[in-house]
Amino acid sequence: MNTGTDHIIKSYDSELARLTGEIVRMGELSVTQLEAAIDVLERRDERAAQRVVGNDDAIDQLEQEIGHDVVRLLALRAPMASDLRNVYAALRIASDIERIGDYAANVAKRSIPLSMVAPVAPVGGLHQLATLAAGEVREVLAAYRDRDAERAYQVWKDDVVLDEAYTGYFRQLLTYMMEDPRNITPCTHLLFMAKNIERIGDHATNIAENVWFQVTGEPLDKQRSKRDLTSSPETTKLGE
Amino acid sequence: MNTGTDHIIKSYDSELARLTGEIVRMGELSVTQLEAAIDVLERRDERAAQRVVGNDDAIDQLEQEIGHDVVRLLALRAPMASDLRNVYAALRIASDIERIGDYAANVAKRSIPLSMVAPVAPVGGLHQLATLAAGEVREVLAAYRDRDAERAYQVWKDDVVLDEAYTGYFRQLLTYMMEDPRNITPCTHLLFMAKNIERIGDHATNIAENVWFQVTGEPLDKQRSKRDLTSSPETTKLGE
Repeated sequence: MNTGTDHIIKSYDSELARLTGEIVRMGELSVTQLEAAIDVLERRDERAAQRVVGNDDAIDQLEQEIGHDVVRLLALRAPMASDLRNVYAALRIASDIERIGDYAANVAKRSIPLSMVAPVAPVGGLHQLATLAAGEVREVLAAYRDRDAERAYQVWKDDVVLDEAYTGYFRQLLTYMMEDPRNITPCTHLLFMAKNIERIGDHATNIAENVWFQVTGEPLDKQRSKRDLTSSPETTKLGE
Repeated sequence: MNTGTDHIIKSYDSELARLTGEIVRMGELSVTQLEAAIDVLERRDERAAQRVVGNDDAIDQLEQEIGHDVVRLLALRAPMASDLRNVYAALRIASDIERIGDYAANVAKRSIPLSMVAPVAPVGGLHQLATLAAGEVREVLAAYRDRDAERAYQVWKDDVVLDEAYTGYFRQLLTYMMEDPRNITPCTHLLFMAKNIERIGDHATNIAENVWFQVTGEPLDKQRSKRDLTSSPETTKLGE
């Protein structure tokens, strides 16, 4: 029984490292998709938008593979507490990244009907939201790669900046809609696109919570109530 | 090594049955939340809406517990192919149910600002969407409980009815917005609420895909292209 143990443990650790690398790569792919989605919107390039939509399949495929890898990894040895945290974090983070990819693809998809209507709508605000969201996702992927709980916590806290930018943009779109009924249809697309990007930020904070839990063994919520009581006003925002 | 095996296998099977029961209960809770969300909207009952929002924590908590149960279950024995499918399906289905709960809570949350503005907006269409979505979720939970791939496939196929009802309602809301700028803010809330419900249907179809895979070992997509070539027009719908 004893001879194979070292080999199994080594292979477990290297499998876990490989898994982390896969997840980070999957995350980078999802950020690239978001940036491409905004790019095709600004260039009003329908064919490129369809490519972005099609690329989402690759992210979905990666998530499926990661799920199966995780289950296989668990079969390599009877898991201990810290293993379970690693494995559980990997599964959840992959699932959040998959959804980030979905939202990015949806932004690209909506740019197609948007390019057919008059270009009156303010697209610049969307670019700003996407830059903030892409920054969050990149930061939290780095925190995951380095198992850096503090860096993850910063992302978690800073998501409020994206939320505020989103609320401002949302209000701006409403004024355009009220000014001229012809703006309603394009602005409705932009509303949903903005919402998708705001949701990407939420998934970055989910990932941050999972990194925090993986590293510290404590849920982030508890820490937050100890460390920062001001960051969660219980207001119902318009575009929430 | 041999004496404990029977005991472990029995405990694995009973653990799996318990897990399935937990997931189905969690699913029923999410459907109840959706129905409550529509109910509070129609009664314009802000306090009840806040209760629905608060209840979502219980669903999130259940999903966390199920995730941990799954990982523990895997530690009970070296998994075989069919075990992996069961366990993988359980994880993914719990995650879809958690999101259904999120969307239901979001519908309830939006009913609060909506109740402060003039009741001009057509709320009836939302009720119809919610009824369709709740029916889908109930059906797919029954299919999961009974490991009934055909029943899951029906849900998967019938989601097109909800999609069409959603598109119709979306267009109706746009006409209200165009008619009178004062309708824009309430109708924007209704647009997002309708979108949330349409997404609940998407998660029901995700669950159906997982039930199909769990039972047959084949992805549903392949079956679909063999069985039903007409159901997926490549059109970009307005509210998608």
